Amino acid sequence: MQNFEFYNPVNIVFGKGQISQLNKLVPAETKIMLAYGGGSIFKNGVYDQVKTALKGFDIVEFGGIEPNPHYETLMKAAEIVKKENLGFILAVGGGSVLDGVKFIAAAACWEGADPWDFLTQRSKYTVNKAIPLGSVLTLPATGSEMNGGSVVTRISTREKLAFMSNAVMPKFSILDPTVVFSLPEKQVANGVVDAFVHVIEQYLTFPVDAPIQDRFAESILVTLVEEGPKVLADRSDYEAAANFMWAATMALNGLIGTGVPQDWATHMIGHELTAFHNIDHARTLAIVLPGIMRVKKENKREKLLQFGERVWKITTGTTEERIDATISRTVEFFESFGIPTKLSAYGIGADFIPVVCDRFTQRGFTGIGERGDLTVAQIGEVLTLQL
Amino acid sequence: MQNFEFYNPVNIVFGKGQISQLNKLVPAETKIMLAYGGGSIFKNGVYDQVKTALKGFDIVEFGGIEPNPHYETLMKAAEIVKKENLGFILAVGGGSVLDGVKFIAAAACWEGADPWDFLTQRSKYTVNKAIPLGSVLTLPATGSEMNGGSVVTRISTREKLAFMSNAVMPKFSILDPTVVFSLPEKQVANGVVDAFVHVIEQYLTFPVDAPIQDRFAESILVTLVEEGPKVLADRSDYEAAANFMWAATMALNGLIGTGVPQDWATHMIGHELTAFHNIDHARTLAIVLPGIMRVKKENKREKLLQFGERVWKITTGTTEERIDATISRTVEFFESFGIPTKLSAYGIGADFIPVVCDRFTQRGFTGIGERGDLTVAQIGEVLTLQL
Repeated sequence: MQNFEFYNPVNIVFGKGQISQLNKLVPAETKIMLAYGGGSIFKNGVYDQVKTALKGFDIVEFGGIEPNPHYETLMKAAEIVKKENLGFILAVGGGSVLDGVKFIAAAACWEGADPWDFLTQRSKYTVNKAIPLGSVLTLPATGSEMNGGSVVTRISTREKLAFMSNAVMPKFSILDPTVVFSLPEKQVANGVVDAFVHVIEQYLTFPVDAPIQDRFAESILVTLVEEGPKVLADRSDYEAAANFMWAATMALNGLIGTGVPQDWATHMIGHELTAFHNIDHARTLAIVLPGIMRVKKENKREKLLQFGERVWKITTGTTEERIDATISRTVEFFESFGIPTKLSAYGIGADFIPVVCDRFTQRGFTGIGERGDLTVAQIGEVLTLQL
Repeated sequence: MQNFEFYNPVNIVFGKGQISQLNKLVPAETKIMLAYGGGSIFKNGVYDQVKTALKGFDIVEFGGIEPNPHYETLMKAAEIVKKENLGFILAVGGGSVLDGVKFIAAAACWEGADPWDFLTQRSKYTVNKAIPLGSVLTLPATGSEMNGGSVVTRISTREKLAFMSNAVMPKFSILDPTVVFSLPEKQVANGVVDAFVHVIEQYLTFPVDAPIQDRFAESILVTLVEEGPKVLADRSDYEAAANFMWAATMALNGLIGTGVPQDWATHMIGHELTAFHNIDHARTLAIVLPGIMRVKKENKREKLLQFGERVWKITTGTTEERIDATISRTVEFFESFGIPTKLSAYGIGADFIPVVCDRFTQRGFTGIGERGDLTVAQIGEVLTLQL
């Protein structure tokens, strides 16, 4: 096991009816921003529950945070936070609203020239200060409700970039599984695949004798494989919704990544597919991951075999056959949720590949993945395999 | 899954050489108490590492905290904290030192008559304030390094009681697995069994459709079964020591207990064995648990079968045979570490049983265990089975 530091002070309040606890969790002595997205919270009753719980609180609303939240939109919110001297931000929504609120919270306290700098120059700038925030999660998927990560898209430059800071970890996140009841099929599918790939990025690397981390990762994967289809088949199955929701949170709260190598190449390449073609985040992961598994088969040999055996129960055949079966089984799993894993299914052809490669080259790229040895040429190979 | 709240802000700093980080973790602007036990930290080099890391800090030392830390000793420390106006307490030791420091931290801020009250009258008093504390763990076992629980023994009344408070959660805990290298065999054995039973108390109850929690619990159990003997066989095996250490922490940091029923009857009965006969905590658990499994076989039927199958790989035989094999295998596991599971091996006879039963009756006992239906008569049965 490698040395590590683990710190996660997010207070998780989990279960049906828990939105009513908001008045005890949100600070009473300050004016708060209530931030949300495109308005699904008006249809599923969450907005009403939140407003009821926060009766008497001084609230400024900010709606319209987009999927893959836009820098341009968030900067407007940050201006309001500063101008109105708001002391707390409550994110009510999915990962995009949460990520957006994290950026707003940091941007409102940023003393440098442009908050965009802490995404483009992560080695130079660190976010140490942010307006405190909390969340009511409406979509299990990204894990943003229990970590300090945020991904923001700048429309004008077609860039999708991340930042991490303990300062933007939510003070609390309310996870009420009944929010799953009204989710469209596509969002459930995306959520399951997103959480699945979050685990894979921290697990499918090389072994470092970390059996707890490996088994926790496999626990989440197997649970997603079992519960995901149940949620898709019957959105009102509370137990399946609860298990899916907790799995998605556990997939990216730092715990399974303690003391082990991490990959994240799938995410980095996937972000470019969203930045240029606006493909849903989870779908970009389903496209890229199978290519990464194939191109980096040698690097990942031992963990591919372990993943195949423990998650997909693949125990027969030669090593090569078992690895191929493991990759095929993963592709089948994504496609069983109606998520295509080939670029062509999204109308993207080979001409797009050099565009992605050029962007990595331009950023002074020196290799990504758990060994830092995935080259730009290999990024091209990955995408070519997935045409 | 049941509704739950999960909050664990302890900063874990894990790995070899991490004690040197202390100067960044301990607040510089205050006078601190350095608290420890019987002096093993002088032999294993930890004391020197701590003093080197804290060069220049204003330190008051308090040594001699006993195994099953004594209220009488801890009250003296609390007096010093108050008199010298200390602002931070660093626990350097195992679970007893940690539990002791938590009590000291709370007692020093207690405004009521006697701090003992917050252990004896938990429904009436809550600990909301404590001197901030941190720890350097020297013995993986109790999990106290990552929770807000503490168990204290009052010698004058032969009582061993617990309290829980977020206020006494360590700000940080340094877990350097090399501390295991110098542990005597008995302490390794106790540590493995202690962590194992902590998991069992949160797992071996009745199913509530919580697959993540179940699998995480089984992950820790299997890891203890694999790594425990390795540590015992070769104390200098760093990887085994690290995995044992992380397993013990994960066993009782609240995570596997989220949203599931919990038992803790084994601990409550075990505490009486320590209070009256000063048997090591882990050994009391190894004595009581097999009796609980037998007497509460019906309550625990489904989880006993799952535990047998997933941890001990018991898959054949009738239900009854599988349950018996599961209990036997658990007993064998404890005894393979040189820990007897019968009272007679500790020189305790049947005359002790009514003493324990009377104590539960005197406390206005209304039933313990995950269903609250373990009666005083059944406590007698449990102990009779383990004579």
